[in-house]
Amino acid sequence: MDDDRPLFFHVMAYADDADHDVIDMVSGDPDWEPPTALREGLREFADAPVADYQYPPSEGRGDLRDLLADRHDVPVERLVVTNGGGEANHLAMACGLEAHAGNEVILTDPVYPYYADRAELLGADVTYAPVADDGALDPETVRAVASEETALIVACSPNNPTGAVYGESVKRELTDIAEANDALYVSDEVYEAFDFSGRFHSALAFDSENVAVTNSFSKAMATTGLRVGYAILPDHLVDPVRTRHMLTNVAVTAPGQHAALKALRETPDDYYAETRAMLESRIEHFCEALDAAGAEYIQPQGAFYVLARFDGFPGTLDNTKRLIDEAGVAGMPGDAFGSAREEWLRFALVSPRADEAADRLAAYFS
Amino acid sequence: MDDDRPLFFHVMAYADDADHDVIDMVSGDPDWEPPTALREGLREFADAPVADYQYPPSEGRGDLRDLLADRHDVPVERLVVTNGGGEANHLAMACGLEAHAGNEVILTDPVYPYYADRAELLGADVTYAPVADDGALDPETVRAVASEETALIVACSPNNPTGAVYGESVKRELTDIAEANDALYVSDEVYEAFDFSGRFHSALAFDSENVAVTNSFSKAMATTGLRVGYAILPDHLVDPVRTRHMLTNVAVTAPGQHAALKALRETPDDYYAETRAMLESRIEHFCEALDAAGAEYIQPQGAFYVLARFDGFPGTLDNTKRLIDEAGVAGMPGDAFGSAREEWLRFALVSPRADEAADRLAAYFS
Repeated sequence: MDDDRPLFFHVMAYADDADHDVIDMVSGDPDWEPPTALREGLREFADAPVADYQYPPSEGRGDLRDLLADRHDVPVERLVVTNGGGEANHLAMACGLEAHAGNEVILTDPVYPYYADRAELLGADVTYAPVADDGALDPETVRAVASEETALIVACSPNNPTGAVYGESVKRELTDIAEANDALYVSDEVYEAFDFSGRFHSALAFDSENVAVTNSFSKAMATTGLRVGYAILPDHLVDPVRTRHMLTNVAVTAPGQHAALKALRETPDDYYAETRAMLESRIEHFCEALDAAGAEYIQPQGAFYVLARFDGFPGTLDNTKRLIDEAGVAGMPGDAFGSAREEWLRFALVSPRADEAADRLAAYFS
Repeated sequence: MDDDRPLFFHVMAYADDADHDVIDMVSGDPDWEPPTALREGLREFADAPVADYQYPPSEGRGDLRDLLADRHDVPVERLVVTNGGGEANHLAMACGLEAHAGNEVILTDPVYPYYADRAELLGADVTYAPVADDGALDPETVRAVASEETALIVACSPNNPTGAVYGESVKRELTDIAEANDALYVSDEVYEAFDFSGRFHSALAFDSENVAVTNSFSKAMATTGLRVGYAILPDHLVDPVRTRHMLTNVAVTAPGQHAALKALRETPDDYYAETRAMLESRIEHFCEALDAAGAEYIQPQGAFYVLARFDGFPGTLDNTKRLIDEAGVAGMPGDAFGSAREEWLRFALVSPRADEAADRLAAYFS
């Protein structure tokens, strides 16, 4: 099985081993503070009664599910709390593949590599729909390849790695295509909190039996290690997902659920607004530096990644290492994200030194 | 898919809804204090740096794996930290089924119901090996049904629900049978801390390529909701398990791993000894009450369950409810645990009122 971990690890280890200063922009681990209430939630749990330390309900704590269902305006029965957005996505893909006819998964190219690896683990065939130069997804490219063989369409918006935000009309089209082909559209919305375009639109709005939405607190609350996420499922997938979740994981960590609930209840909107503004500022500075370096890049509309191509400097593993050695900046080779952007490099703007990294790249390439 | 959750839930809900006092002995949630250091670990984590809140290594924190590998005297490469013992067992079963010839899973009867449900989820066929009246497993009953069709043998010792402890010779035989049939013996050792017989012997000791061991802190540290466990795998399953784990869960909760590590390092042996003594005392009192009630039962050698049969009072769901209504004691119907003990009831001795429950049963049946 191919996966991006060895490549991530390889690049991170290479950067760590460097005997000079390297700014790490390899993986998508937030570098800013989680909400105060999240830390307080863990502190509270440390003193919780013994009963709170035991199995929570397999589908998630009732009060956490109620709050999330209320925020998303869906019946609580459709919501299952998972071990991060990763498990939510895995469950939606696994149960969607079983419940829908066909064995094909349609993914975008470039792609978040876990989708492709999960499809392989589940024995599905992958068909790629290439996105436009600016990262936009034309639903017609998906429609052109969709057929009765299609069981799943999996797409992330705001997107990793392109930063594109697929707006209402794109998501409506993807939903229509799923409905027309008896497929499930899995809409991964984990970067929902980081939309700079104002165009984010949840696929839940279409109220379709062919849509599952996966989400988590990992990015929005800067805590990828907490492992609390959730799936919102169409009725026919609720029982299969709950069963598979129970037999895979039994339940989701109780201290994490407690902390996530407290953070959901008590975190002011300012927290999210400030994070978004900080990321927007990093992206602006970074893109200015890319302009100065004469690089081609996709202007992100959301999330916190920038895909860029430097003239005469394809984004191979060798060049990734050269950039670590000679510019002191670590990114990811483009071929980790499908075949469409092999020449590119992805930079995760999750370092307090993102501006400095931008300046280093501008200096190195100009 | 059948699973025991609806039945567990049904019984627990019935007991909760009763308008009189009911002692809950339905599910296996410890009622005693987790180690002080475990609570302290969560408190510590509340103040940890931002980086600690991000993805831990998918296979588990290095220092936690090192400590566990050292305690079990195995190479650290063979150890993967999981979302509780449940995920460890799921991964060993899923990857063992793929790697070994045949599609059959041999389980004991009575059985821990998750094993059978996982086998069904994974599309495997189940063959049951009945245990003796006293809960002992005669390996010859397993050998008699094992064949080249056998991919897995899954057994738990100390056992849920019988309380039996399979000693060194039984586990050696099961290992031999797995080796002779190109199967994987998955030895679930989550009740290791609660062996009253002195005969517990880890299947790791045989150093076989046909053995995987699964374990967790859920029971030993009274924290089934923490969701930190681990699998120790033979070499050929390490990569498949790590890949499946990564694509299912990405990683295991970071605060939980921190708390488990601190508790492992700092919890004195007295903590485990005192818990064991408390459970032994509960079991002794409970079995005396069963004697007084004229009940047949399996004398537990480990874990914290008692399987009992009352004359003229088969362990049906109806009678389970009658016991709740008329005796104020909630147990589990025997048919949740396979077909061999359908007439029996299982009582989980995880209530501070276990002695009182015993007295109620003695009074009710005598």
